[in-house]
Amino acid sequence: MSKPFLKQLQKILPTESILTDASECLTYGYDNSRRHAQPLAVVFPTTEEHVQQIITICNQHNISLYARGRGTGTTGATVPVNGGIVISFEHMNKIIHMDEKNRSIDVQPGVTNLEVQQCAAKHGLFWAPDPTSAAFCSVGGNLAYNSAGPRAVKYGTCRENTLGLRAVTGNGDIIQCGTHTTKGVVGYDLTRLLIGSEGNLALITQATLKLLPLPTAKHTLKASYQSMDAAARAVSNIMAQAVTPCALEFMDKNALDMVRSYSSSELPTNAGAMLMIEVDGHADTIQRESEIIKLASQVEGHIQTDIAQTKEEAHALWQTRKALSPCLRKIAPKKINEDVVVPVSNIPALINALDRLSQTHDIKIVNFGHAGNGNIHVNLLVNPDDKNEMKAAENCLNDVFDLALELNGSLSGEHGVGLEKRNFITKELGKTEIKLMHQIKQVFDKNNILNPGKTLPEM
Amino acid sequence: MSKPFLKQLQKILPTESILTDASECLTYGYDNSRRHAQPLAVVFPTTEEHVQQIITICNQHNISLYARGRGTGTTGATVPVNGGIVISFEHMNKIIHMDEKNRSIDVQPGVTNLEVQQCAAKHGLFWAPDPTSAAFCSVGGNLAYNSAGPRAVKYGTCRENTLGLRAVTGNGDIIQCGTHTTKGVVGYDLTRLLIGSEGNLALITQATLKLLPLPTAKHTLKASYQSMDAAARAVSNIMAQAVTPCALEFMDKNALDMVRSYSSSELPTNAGAMLMIEVDGHADTIQRESEIIKLASQVEGHIQTDIAQTKEEAHALWQTRKALSPCLRKIAPKKINEDVVVPVSNIPALINALDRLSQTHDIKIVNFGHAGNGNIHVNLLVNPDDKNEMKAAENCLNDVFDLALELNGSLSGEHGVGLEKRNFITKELGKTEIKLMHQIKQVFDKNNILNPGKTLPEM
Ligand SMILES: Cc1cc2nc3c(=O)[nH]c(=O)nc-3n(C[C@H](O)[C@H](O)[C@H](O)COP(=O)(O)OP(=O)(O)OC[C@H]3O[C@@H](n4cnc5c(N)ncnc54)[C@H](O)[C@@H]3O)c2cc1C
Ligand SMILES: Cc1cc2nc3c(=O)[nH]c(=O)nc-3n(C[C@H](O)[C@H](O)[C@H](O)COP(=O)(O)OP(=O)(O)OC[C@H]3O[C@@H](n4cnc5c(N)ncnc54)[C@H](O)[C@@H]3O)c2cc1C
Repeated sequence: MSKPFLKQLQKILPTESILTDASECLTYGYDNSRRHAQPLAVVFPTTEEHVQQIITICNQHNISLYARGRGTGTTGATVPVNGGIVISFEHMNKIIHMDEKNRSIDVQPGVTNLEVQQCAAKHGLFWAPDPTSAAFCSVGGNLAYNSAGPRAVKYGTCRENTLGLRAVTGNGDIIQCGTHTTKGVVGYDLTRLLIGSEGNLALITQATLKLLPLPTAKHTLKASYQSMDAAARAVSNIMAQAVTPCALEFMDKNALDMVRSYSSSELPTNAGAMLMIEVDGHADTIQRESEIIKLASQVEGHIQTDIAQTKEEAHALWQTRKALSPCLRKIAPKKINEDVVVPVSNIPALINALDRLSQTHDIKIVNFGHAGNGNIHVNLLVNPDDKNEMKAAENCLNDVFDLALELNGSLSGEHGVGLEKRNFITKELGKTEIKLMHQIKQVFDKNNILNPGKTLPEM
Repeated sequence: MSKPFLKQLQKILPTESILTDASECLTYGYDNSRRHAQPLAVVFPTTEEHVQQIITICNQHNISLYARGRGTGTTGATVPVNGGIVISFEHMNKIIHMDEKNRSIDVQPGVTNLEVQQCAAKHGLFWAPDPTSAAFCSVGGNLAYNSAGPRAVKYGTCRENTLGLRAVTGNGDIIQCGTHTTKGVVGYDLTRLLIGSEGNLALITQATLKLLPLPTAKHTLKASYQSMDAAARAVSNIMAQAVTPCALEFMDKNALDMVRSYSSSELPTNAGAMLMIEVDGHADTIQRESEIIKLASQVEGHIQTDIAQTKEEAHALWQTRKALSPCLRKIAPKKINEDVVVPVSNIPALINALDRLSQTHDIKIVNFGHAGNGNIHVNLLVNPDDKNEMKAAENCLNDVFDLALELNGSLSGEHGVGLEKRNFITKELGKTEIKLMHQIKQVFDKNNILNPGKTLPEM
């Protein structure tokens, strides 16, 4: 790092907000993809002004800038591949205004998802996006990836639950977009252009999140099926009637077999697929609603559906699903986890074809995920230290992506592109669309300072 | 129109798909804002290829192109102010694919909202956007304006209910954006960038709409209050609990007085505001749900809440609200109808301040609208033929917009900018944001062919 640049940084930020020591910077070069690149420095702004000033001097010195929430992303979107500086939003972690009357909250980007939920819950509200990493990941990271979780099937993703943003563009301009209201149609929708743009266009400095009333009751159901086909038919059936569950998760046969072998969880012996369903709502109507869902779950090939009435019973029903992750960690601690998405009715075709790919490439594949959205977590159980296996995995992944697209799907439902999928997205997006995106990037960030080398492939 | 240009048009389209006769073109120069400009010609493409070819020759000859759905817009967004040609999507009106298993439908842009609803209903589904003009307006117009109706309070607008688009940019490039799945995070969100862009960036040639299961039961409630304050408190209270109504409409005191004077609708004499509420859901739970809403409607200042059990009773409850439009038409057939939006808790402050503006400018103002979204239809009862009154109305409107923004709101909740609000949007959007939007426009439409003179103010 050049001395003049460092001097300018030091003018902007107090000493304790700049890390330059290589060992201190090291961990900020990782995210949960386990990829790494060493940053020149790490800076911790506390105000929007800091962010603007940092961007300005990065432009002056042509130094790349990598936004970082908490580094829990799984596709390397925050890894500083060009060796620039990492801007961590950890210290911009204030809840600015809780507006319970209008069901919205203004936060800085470094606030964790869990902190938002806790603050909202005090007023009987919640924010819909619910990645499993909620306790660690930041709102900025959630928005930049458009992250979501099981609840998306009923309540949507960040896109559907964000009212407005403040941000600083790569050119160093502060912008404000969206509204503090649940409707608004003045000007182009810059809010959603920034959501999902992976820190590529502008750095988010404040977000107005749309909150929803917390349901006062929740029921858990577990349904088992002879085959994935039957389970998928049940998913379509459940989604076709007026009571929408707030979670509709599935495990395929390989996932169930794994749990059978490595844990003591109880499962019907003939079960070839399982659905975990949650229904939420009002205490007075929930009983009837879960019965309606239970009825919809009973398609041909259905084995049984259990409804939990108490917290303890719900806990018991979740055991099979909860046993899966430890099993996977035991067998393949460094497995590859993809998150393709297909129309719900194509889930069985996808699972069947994945079985064939598993045989062709001689790689064990285990599938689970958000069935209601057709968002399938495809897990390749490989050992990254085995070069041959990794070569096979690479070819297999390529086929998995082709398959998802043949089935009218997409390469990613929630984990984003980052580095991991960057070389594959030309399979999904045409040249014209990618060129247009590059030109939009150019409008926001003419010197390509923000997160270069990510998300969009080279032209 | 130059001969070479017309010749090229005639190569692309059959004779019956081109209007050049001034009297035949005349009506295509209007929309529901009653503004008018005479187009050079009107063309009726039937394929995406036509659209692309038309755009290409307009670029070659530097002729402006104005997309038109059915011209029901109220802000003049489709009026050909620069005297270019109107491209009407009336004949691109095919439903391409109804995918009931995945709850989505692919349509051409000229299909009416009602046709979508009718096709979806056959499979027990519906599309959430429900402008009152549904029988006449087109999906393309809905998307370009991000139109919505009462149901938005529960189900959102076009933005939350569109999966993907095909479009031709102003540069003549065909693009495909979004997915056929309910989740997808590959690349920037061009889908939502086009939604609400008022035919400014690209012409939509196909849309994949997200459908939802039709509720099997609906209850109507009518609640009256001593004051707007009390009604607004009820709105907040209703929106704070777990059962969200699918319509939460209001009428203010002036609106009620008007109905009292000009119709025979029954109303409590001390009612200073009224809410019309609809609850939808499953037949087995709806009764309890509407009781929950009724309970939430009973705040201080509440007079009474009636629940309709039958269609006839519902019809009776709607009478007051339904009487309003004919009354308004009788008194002020050419009234100005604005659709500002404020956070729900600021509705009383808005209504009170509008009362003061009414006195200051000596103009009668009547308010009703979508209370659950804070989307207020502000009606100035003026006679456009009276020049003095129109001058006063102009000043008054200016104050109305300032007021909405002071109250943390926006200039438009659903009617858009078009021509009507173009000169006001610098009140809401900063120079930086407008410049950014102009630059985005430049990326999509470098020769400024599409809908010039609309939506964005000059730089
Ligand atoms: C155990 C575990 C479970 C997970 N479960 C889920 C899940 O259920 N669903 C899901 O979708 N994901 C899940 N993830 C992935 C990850 O947690 C999410 O993607 C999360 O949103 C990332 O947040 P972060 O703060 O860690 O962001 P980071 O990883 O630090 O960054 C992510 C992206 O956001 C950008 N960014 C961060 N802050 C800003 C800002 N202020 N302005 C602009 N850009 C910014 C970065 O540049 C990068 O592109 C999981 C991860 C783990 C480790
Ligand atoms: C009686 C009545 C009631 C109404 N109620 C409501 C209501 O409840 N809620 C509401 O939001 N609005 C309402 N409106 C306004 C209007 O109906 C809506 O805005 C509607 O969406 C316009 O559709 P249209 O097909 O008539 O579009 P037009 O008015 O023809 O055009 C609207 C915009 O869309 C663009 N456009 C049209 N087709 C395309 C395309 N294929 N590609 C790109 N751009 C395109 C045009 O250029 C223009 O900018 C109402 C209007 C009337 C007359």
